[in-house]
Amino acid sequence: MAEIMKTITSIHDMTTWARDRVLNRESIGFVPTMGYLHDGHLSLVKRARSENDAVVASVFVNPTQFGQNEDFTVYPRDPDGDSEKLRSGGVDVLFIPEADELYGQDYETYVELERLPLPLCGKSRPGHFRGVATVVLKLFNIVLPNNAYFGSKDFQQLQVIRRMVRDLNVSTMIVGCPTVREPDGLAMSSRNAYLSPVERKQAICLHDALMIAKGLFDKTETDASVYIKAMKDRITEESDARPDYISLVDPETLEDLPTVKDAALAVMAVKIGKTRLIDNMSLAG
Amino acid sequence: MAEIMKTITSIHDMTTWARDRVLNRESIGFVPTMGYLHDGHLSLVKRARSENDAVVASVFVNPTQFGQNEDFTVYPRDPDGDSEKLRSGGVDVLFIPEADELYGQDYETYVELERLPLPLCGKSRPGHFRGVATVVLKLFNIVLPNNAYFGSKDFQQLQVIRRMVRDLNVSTMIVGCPTVREPDGLAMSSRNAYLSPVERKQAICLHDALMIAKGLFDKTETDASVYIKAMKDRITEESDARPDYISLVDPETLEDLPTVKDAALAVMAVKIGKTRLIDNMSLAG
Repeated sequence: MAEIMKTITSIHDMTTWARDRVLNRESIGFVPTMGYLHDGHLSLVKRARSENDAVVASVFVNPTQFGQNEDFTVYPRDPDGDSEKLRSGGVDVLFIPEADELYGQDYETYVELERLPLPLCGKSRPGHFRGVATVVLKLFNIVLPNNAYFGSKDFQQLQVIRRMVRDLNVSTMIVGCPTVREPDGLAMSSRNAYLSPVERKQAICLHDALMIAKGLFDKTETDASVYIKAMKDRITEESDARPDYISLVDPETLEDLPTVKDAALAVMAVKIGKTRLIDNMSLAG
Repeated sequence: MAEIMKTITSIHDMTTWARDRVLNRESIGFVPTMGYLHDGHLSLVKRARSENDAVVASVFVNPTQFGQNEDFTVYPRDPDGDSEKLRSGGVDVLFIPEADELYGQDYETYVELERLPLPLCGKSRPGHFRGVATVVLKLFNIVLPNNAYFGSKDFQQLQVIRRMVRDLNVSTMIVGCPTVREPDGLAMSSRNAYLSPVERKQAICLHDALMIAKGLFDKTETDASVYIKAMKDRITEESDARPDYISLVDPETLEDLPTVKDAALAVMAVKIGKTRLIDNMSLAG
């Protein structure tokens, strides 16, 4: 593809471009983001670049996936930085849709899943995954990707999208990519920008707690309550840390596992001051 | 296209066929049905045939759009007759998916509209339009149609599908086609097969009532309650007829119109014995 990145803001122009690729038998890789890009996002771009003829990245802070008291209005933005990072990453098209065009007058259609959105983040963020599933389906219908790339930090989101795509017979292949971490283990997230220097140090407790779970798994501990207590103890060592949830779940159904045998996922959401962070680690053998 | 109709039952085979058409730059016209085909369906096939390079018709009695006490299990079926009618109509592919494949294990994703499904048929058939929107989106993702054809008898369904396609950025064009009627005016419907000879005669009251509304409109009557009373009077002349709803609505929003000025739609659902029939007529100038 071209070495110059094209920026598209209109849905019509995006679909026209995508349809030309399809008719030209070129594969499209897609990385949907909310911007304020970090190395986690760029690892998705790299993977997309290596597996497709053309790469589209979108930047859209999707209002329908934020609750009323959440951080939609203050979500960090850096359009120029994002654009430069994506260009350097070899993206062909940066798609920046307008909220008014994606959610026009009398908008009323949503994609709802009955079970996967209920536990974990869904409990404290009702409607969040409805917003995510809806905007992802809309973007897929506009960008026509063969492959779409998502990070594993947002594991519940990844599972919701996989299930939605399977259930609605969407032809896009969903590629889950490993979480990218800071040198001290903190999972990269645009929301890390909210942390004060003191909170940033405390935030390492999420990764520490996951490593404690990994250690227990390696010692063949099977009682989930032992894991959860040990993880909680590590989190609450930090004065500004309050767990939202800490669970061991089945990676497929996201249901709580009372006993840890084969594949299990340690997952957590923790508030560090006012900033809600999530992380997870596979305890598969 | 070929003169021999192909019957496909697997989702994978259907999508493979459709993708070949797309890559060959052939347009696909699609007529989704629940089978037991009548001349109304065949008028959709005819239109699709005249406007596309390839034509797909599906026959699938969709379980998710039937309520628990509705007629899913007894819905009339005639696979051989349907196949012959579609072949004669010039259909290239008859797609007959299996319910088990369309709604596999742990199926949990639905398309929900917030407003259009609430009035009219939605009141007595909760969940019906959720099932319709979901299966239509699934079929579109499998058949990849450029154009899809729906009858206007199911006007609320047509509006729900139009809105869903617009909201979710689906690229398929929705073509609404005129209701086809029996010589005496009864709208063609697979459910007419449920009517006894006596009920069949009484069923003409739906069309009669709509013609009464048309007559009032032509006399520039503006008070919706006058229309509704006149229509109801005609329906209840029949001993086995019980109106479910009789309304004058805005054809776009489906909201009740107290005053009839420009575009209005007279809509009704009437039970004739145990058979629920629907019909509508545009009162646009």
